[in-house]
Amino acid sequence: MSYSTDPRAARSREAMLAAARDLLVSEGPGAITHQRVAQQAGVGRATVYRHWPRPEHLLLEVMSGADLPLFKNPETPVRPWLRRQLRQMADELAVPAVAAVSLTLMQSAIWDPEIAHRRDESLKTITERIHAAVRSAVASGEVETDAGPTDLSAVLVGPIVYRTTMQNGVVSDDLIDRLIDGVGIWHR
Amino acid sequence: MSYSTDPRAARSREAMLAAARDLLVSEGPGAITHQRVAQQAGVGRATVYRHWPRPEHLLLEVMSGADLPLFKNPETPVRPWLRRQLRQMADELAVPAVAAVSLTLMQSAIWDPEIAHRRDESLKTITERIHAAVRSAVASGEVETDAGPTDLSAVLVGPIVYRTTMQNGVVSDDLIDRLIDGVGIWHR
Repeated sequence: MSYSTDPRAARSREAMLAAARDLLVSEGPGAITHQRVAQQAGVGRATVYRHWPRPEHLLLEVMSGADLPLFKNPETPVRPWLRRQLRQMADELAVPAVAAVSLTLMQSAIWDPEIAHRRDESLKTITERIHAAVRSAVASGEVETDAGPTDLSAVLVGPIVYRTTMQNGVVSDDLIDRLIDGVGIWHR
Repeated sequence: MSYSTDPRAARSREAMLAAARDLLVSEGPGAITHQRVAQQAGVGRATVYRHWPRPEHLLLEVMSGADLPLFKNPETPVRPWLRRQLRQMADELAVPAVAAVSLTLMQSAIWDPEIAHRRDESLKTITERIHAAVRSAVASGEVETDAGPTDLSAVLVGPIVYRTTMQNGVVSDDLIDRLIDGVGIWHR
């Protein structure tokens, strides 16, 4: 991914990203090909190739373009906040295109070190945010748990990812409460 | 995938499957291409294409060739049996090639109805087996839970899949015990 200081190049880059976002929303991740993005953005195919040699890179950038808002800024008490965050994550992953792109990126990470690196960064951010929130709940006496950071996110996020991307099913509020119960012993 | 009654065709089919299994074990799922399988099996590339028009189909057949032994034949008490089954699943998914093939198949299921169907069948089998085991534990008074079949498998299997294929980490025995605790209230 090349970044240019030339304003015209920056504009065409923005146009291509906007086109990719539109295609993602209207037709799903499969539509994000060099050819379709070039057509939609009104640029040559070679221009898209130059910026993103592989369509996965473009997908990744479209997906990670916005700062991940999930699990940001925990509130007290932690439990209802955690419930809302998990609900939102489940609702986002319930959109077939989002689930598809997530799986595609996870799969591309197998052979693409850059995608693997960005996946690791995203998962690390989520893990740290969840851990910070649960730590503050432990400090205030809201919950007792000895679960470490990666186990916490595996227990809370793992079943939601599994349900939405693999079981192809709906995450009920009951399931979310069950996951939160699995963190430890909640008081109050 | 075509099945022939011609013994020579059946032999070459077996040779291709054996070649694909060898490539999977020695070099990982990326090595399962039409060309490599043809070379290794000593057949023409067109023959591989004829049997499996897409490499994913061949992958799927190699992966699902053996009857899934996981979670089969529950034992009493259920808890130690469940712990062993989850340990085995985690150990299998800890092999990079197995995790990679699993993710590849999950991702291929997005656009391939046949793979989606076989994925659904596999997940259904696991869900039914886990549910049957937990139901027998409930019947014998070993555990109290009101979790339904799909929630049970999401809570038990989801974090293991997430840890091994996405967090790229090791599933500890502690995590497995935590997951089993999340099923409900265990007695004895």
